[in-house]
Amino acid sequence: MKRTNISNNVIRRLPRYLRKLDDLASRGEERISSDKLGRQMGLTPSQIRQDFSCFGEFGQQGYGYNVDSLRKEIGQILGTYRDYSAILVGAGNLGTALVQNFEFIIEGYSFLGAFDVRPEVIGKDISGFPIYDVAGVGDFVREHKVDIAILTVPREAAQDLTDVLVEAGIRAIWNFTNTEISVGENGPLVESIHFADSLLVLTYHLAELDDANKKK
Amino acid sequence: MKRTNISNNVIRRLPRYLRKLDDLASRGEERISSDKLGRQMGLTPSQIRQDFSCFGEFGQQGYGYNVDSLRKEIGQILGTYRDYSAILVGAGNLGTALVQNFEFIIEGYSFLGAFDVRPEVIGKDISGFPIYDVAGVGDFVREHKVDIAILTVPREAAQDLTDVLVEAGIRAIWNFTNTEISVGENGPLVESIHFADSLLVLTYHLAELDDANKKK
Repeated sequence: MKRTNISNNVIRRLPRYLRKLDDLASRGEERISSDKLGRQMGLTPSQIRQDFSCFGEFGQQGYGYNVDSLRKEIGQILGTYRDYSAILVGAGNLGTALVQNFEFIIEGYSFLGAFDVRPEVIGKDISGFPIYDVAGVGDFVREHKVDIAILTVPREAAQDLTDVLVEAGIRAIWNFTNTEISVGENGPLVESIHFADSLLVLTYHLAELDDANKKK
Repeated sequence: MKRTNISNNVIRRLPRYLRKLDDLASRGEERISSDKLGRQMGLTPSQIRQDFSCFGEFGQQGYGYNVDSLRKEIGQILGTYRDYSAILVGAGNLGTALVQNFEFIIEGYSFLGAFDVRPEVIGKDISGFPIYDVAGVGDFVREHKVDIAILTVPREAAQDLTDVLVEAGIRAIWNFTNTEISVGENGPLVESIHFADSLLVLTYHLAELDDANKKK
């Protein structure tokens, strides 16, 4: 698999392609042209061909792409078959919703359990996964060599828990705390979810429509 | 305010600028150069100057940008001062977490309440906001001319509720259902949150590191 020279922009589009291909596969589609895929995704066919050529997938003139093999290839590039291990740090409403509603967290990953500070939830479970005392999260990460921590604690606790996770050798943090966390040099990978950003994009477009209507 | 010719890429960067400027303001910083801002955000100074020039903000040679005025301007462009009204559709764990933890939903917006189908939560509240029967959500949207619906129902219910909201004249849907919703032509604006995408980006980089280590 060619992995060099894939730009960040292409990497960020890969999950979208994967979702689209999953969707096509579930509807029984066996192949798709770059033209059709482009129309459905709001991208130009040449953009799509260029993206896919980054990892050596060229499709066939007059046939297009084989949905299933392209899907598997993108999944492989994204590492979805590697069974990375994950824990949830913060078993509040948001963390619970992630584990309960989004099977993707469990599918393709080894989900090992949740951690929380509140005595009333420690020892209980979320969808069958145990909730442990967060005091033991560092030891757990060390012992199980956990790859990914899903951080859903209140923002005041975010940096302290990040320090514990980094010290214990966590490899990646999926950050939902809506605050910046600092992991130091050579620290783990961090992806932060900023919900508000996409709300603001909506609001921008509402404001734009309102301004345009005022002008009329 | 100049609003024409702002590209989608710039629009999507504006919330990030706003977060950064909020952060700088909260630390008492009064001005910042495009060089320094670029370093802190991983963008080139010329990229930043170009982005800001889209809406007529040029900064001053040798002084940089005034943090507070730039922040207000970006907020204005994003429509954060327009007091758009919002409702939550689906008062489960995820919806509850959004309303409880993310004050941004309330700040700058009129949050009017939540809707759910479960008798045991109807009549209760989330952080002081009432939970209504979802059967009345169409009438509510019509009556209160609601701008934004935050959709956090299970994916099976996503399209049916979307149809109700569209029929009632909702202007924008912030979609957390992890499924595509269709709103028809001239339907409302839609922004979908796909949590899994950013998890896959993390996984991509983990796989990349693992592959690089194998080669050594």
